[in-house]
Amino acid sequence: MARVVVDVMLKPEILDPQGQAVQRALPRLGFDGIADVRQGKRFELEVEGPVDDAALARIHEMAETFLANTVIEDFAVKVEETAEPAK
Amino acid sequence: MARVVVDVMLKPEILDPQGQAVQRALPRLGFDGIADVRQGKRFELEVEGPVDDAALARIHEMAETFLANTVIEDFAVKVEETAEPAK
Repeated sequence: MARVVVDVMLKPEILDPQGQAVQRALPRLGFDGIADVRQGKRFELEVEGPVDDAALARIHEMAETFLANTVIEDFAVKVEETAEPAK
Repeated sequence: MARVVVDVMLKPEILDPQGQAVQRALPRLGFDGIADVRQGKRFELEVEGPVDDAALARIHEMAETFLANTVIEDFAVKVEETAEPAK
């Protein structure tokens, strides 16, 4: 079973109030030197069968239509190596 | 300016209703072959200055005390290469 990760982040031009809240809280908590924080979502998908081009194309479509709102969000699909790689 | 990513995911033994909702919706939307979905958070931190061991140690502490709830969540800190690498 292979793991595919879909990262969904707000586009850079979209205001990210969650990230701003985190960034503003950091100095109060004693953490300096962080210029910007953006918060997004991470989906870990356990894929049955091999992660070939067809499977990745399907996951890409799934991310585009369902996991991300592509009006305001960007997404990235990455294959993660697992202990038992896809054959 | 270097980018450091903190991924926060629920621990494997903790129920993830958000991920389950996504997983159950997928077959209805025509996507089969996904055995499991876990949903978590991704923080992208823009770090001022070099990302050396001291900076990473601070970010690790920040993630542990502030970004993740380590009772129920695991986190991972990763340095991402950017166009303008830290000097």
